[in-house]
Amino acid sequence: MRAVDLIRKKRDSAELSREEINFLIAGYTNGEIPDYQMAAWLMAAWIRGINRSELAALTEAMLYSGQILNLSRIPGKKVDKHSTGGVGDKTSLILAPIVAAGGLTVPMISGRGLGHTGGTLDKLESIPGFNVNLDLDEFFNVLRKCGMGLIGQTTEIAPADKKIYALRDATSTVENIGLICASIMSKKLAEGIDALVLDVKTGSGAFMKSEEDSVHLAEIMVETGERMGKKMVALITDMNQPLGRMAGHANEVIECIDVLNGRGPADLRELSLELSAWMFYLGERTKSLAEARRLAEEMIASGKAKEKFKQGIRLQGGDDRVVDNPALLPKAASRVDVTSSAAGFITAINCEALGTALATLGGGREKKEDTIDHAVGLEFHKRIGDRIEKDQPLVTIHYNRGAKLAEAKAQIAGSYHIGDTAPKEKLPLIRRILGA
Amino acid sequence: MRAVDLIRKKRDSAELSREEINFLIAGYTNGEIPDYQMAAWLMAAWIRGINRSELAALTEAMLYSGQILNLSRIPGKKVDKHSTGGVGDKTSLILAPIVAAGGLTVPMISGRGLGHTGGTLDKLESIPGFNVNLDLDEFFNVLRKCGMGLIGQTTEIAPADKKIYALRDATSTVENIGLICASIMSKKLAEGIDALVLDVKTGSGAFMKSEEDSVHLAEIMVETGERMGKKMVALITDMNQPLGRMAGHANEVIECIDVLNGRGPADLRELSLELSAWMFYLGERTKSLAEARRLAEEMIASGKAKEKFKQGIRLQGGDDRVVDNPALLPKAASRVDVTSSAAGFITAINCEALGTALATLGGGREKKEDTIDHAVGLEFHKRIGDRIEKDQPLVTIHYNRGAKLAEAKAQIAGSYHIGDTAPKEKLPLIRRILGA
Repeated sequence: MRAVDLIRKKRDSAELSREEINFLIAGYTNGEIPDYQMAAWLMAAWIRGINRSELAALTEAMLYSGQILNLSRIPGKKVDKHSTGGVGDKTSLILAPIVAAGGLTVPMISGRGLGHTGGTLDKLESIPGFNVNLDLDEFFNVLRKCGMGLIGQTTEIAPADKKIYALRDATSTVENIGLICASIMSKKLAEGIDALVLDVKTGSGAFMKSEEDSVHLAEIMVETGERMGKKMVALITDMNQPLGRMAGHANEVIECIDVLNGRGPADLRELSLELSAWMFYLGERTKSLAEARRLAEEMIASGKAKEKFKQGIRLQGGDDRVVDNPALLPKAASRVDVTSSAAGFITAINCEALGTALATLGGGREKKEDTIDHAVGLEFHKRIGDRIEKDQPLVTIHYNRGAKLAEAKAQIAGSYHIGDTAPKEKLPLIRRILGA
Repeated sequence: MRAVDLIRKKRDSAELSREEINFLIAGYTNGEIPDYQMAAWLMAAWIRGINRSELAALTEAMLYSGQILNLSRIPGKKVDKHSTGGVGDKTSLILAPIVAAGGLTVPMISGRGLGHTGGTLDKLESIPGFNVNLDLDEFFNVLRKCGMGLIGQTTEIAPADKKIYALRDATSTVENIGLICASIMSKKLAEGIDALVLDVKTGSGAFMKSEEDSVHLAEIMVETGERMGKKMVALITDMNQPLGRMAGHANEVIECIDVLNGRGPADLRELSLELSAWMFYLGERTKSLAEARRLAEEMIASGKAKEKFKQGIRLQGGDDRVVDNPALLPKAASRVDVTSSAAGFITAINCEALGTALATLGGGREKKEDTIDHAVGLEFHKRIGDRIEKDQPLVTIHYNRGAKLAEAKAQIAGSYHIGDTAPKEKLPLIRRILGA
């Protein structure tokens, strides 16, 4: 078998066999197949597409390129959630403590933010001392002690994915449903979980702008997981505007603490409870989804989720005092409002541009190597359908360096579409539920 | 400007500007853009295609990545011919002496054989001592002295093409009309010529199997050359069967000497004279094509072309005694016939398979690094339309090592299609003439 023939095959829209995909992924991972051949194959796959059986083979080849976490010595079911990412999407920090407090184990291997989206690891690192770089033994110990752990992709987990993802990033082959699915699922399946809840975002702040594309991605991820014997569900959720009122790393941690204290914005609270409920239900902690929902609410009301969050922070080296005293989190030096140039109703938001504005201010990455200012943030005052007056604030910017402030302000101001009447239809937060 | 954005642009079928193409080619040539990004771009270009203005920009960027030969100190016009390659295609060794003997300068930078096709450089190297690796100064001196020179691509000539071609070979991005055109034309235009005659092969032994594809390639090459101020013509010629009776390196040199002696097979003689005539005519050596044809015939009849060939061989270090005594060329140890399993008429030939059989016997390359046995050859006894009896020889194999003989015999036997009646239509050797 030769890589050049497998490139030709995909170029000519033919299907690759499982053996051929294994050869390609194993060869690339161990360095026998060079970057340039993989790059050509990825571009051919991006354009020609990969079908369901190729996807299954690709996901498994990437999964088995590394270790699969063995959590059998920890009793009970292991469940996780994965979100395709958006602006202000911070539910992981809420539902991991809820579900762990409720008795399941949540082994969460997360990513960093890139482009307009935030990443769970970056948010956690705004907590002083929090260490996301545990090795698998340390991760296991944290999980055994408190039922939740949040780390980054280690070298043992799906090394093929790590290498392929870096190459995709450099060769404009990221945005492809098959390649995205294989990348996500190979990492998530390596967590040794029994069930996975997917939060597939749709709308102007999501990678998938159309509901159709989001549903397609959700379907193939559910199918791929189920093929591997996992319980799966996918919630298609709205990302036409930021989730919650806050974006930016420390700001989002504060908002999560608010929700764990029984407060916080309604949309964030609702989605966190719903995702937690599905995790309880698929993890067979409850007999019905309704019971699961009540359990999730109970974990907040009793303060157990908040205590679990503190324990989790502590076990990963973080300063758990931030939970009761958020002032210990990094705080931006200055604030300024972006105001509305007209009176009317918010009819639409370019949510991706808000994420980009945050990155412009230093609160996100344009390139992987960029460092992040955890204190920078955006506070959103208006949602789609809200009435606004001229000169009333749309967004408050929390910033440290003024260098790119004008650029960010323009990006934000240009993101809000204001009309004379409110939009007739209010799109639900949870659009569809697939695979349940 | 970033390579990753130019990859995305081509991936999404957008047109790249001249500046963008210059950035890509210059960056790749000087090593700033890595192989993997170029590989992804090439695959996107292969699948999405490149349009006429991209092609012009690409050709020029590749041309100007190196030196352009300055032949202004040599009086008269400089002309060349390029063939897209086939089996038994050996006209360069005939027309270079004819045209140089007729008073024009032929600065021929040629290639090596790969896959089923032979290469001019390899054929020349079957002549003991012949050195195709002259630098540009040595090449200039040979051209000044005798009006013809035949060398390989030097490091000074279109280095971008050399690097890109190697990458295309390893990433299954070779067979694309735009990329082929840019590769050929960037090298040919670097020869400092005034006119170029293209021999675009079509049929079962050509890279382009269909006449439509061949015409398309011819059209864009003619257009690209004319855009750069060159006189251009393209002959679409038949490659559904080998050209002449011989394939294999020493064998083909012998057949060329036959033609220069006024003998040799009719098809090879005809095509060589026709291509020579076009070179004379475009090189303004004659006022009409008919006059050019007479001049070409005269160069053979007078023995001047043969003497020019000897002079050219001598000046490049070769043993010119081979011209009068072909027994000095490498000779294979053994011969064996492949005979017909049935009586009837030759209705079609898989000409590519004949080239592959030659390579199988060591008379061609499967990979660039392979060495060639110059003595190995095939002698073809039957052409399309010929009558054959059962057990009569189709092909005589000249071979040294018997290891893969059975495989080669089977390839050859399977290449001839024999039917009860002769094909009604006889396809002309020269199908179409474009751009004149």
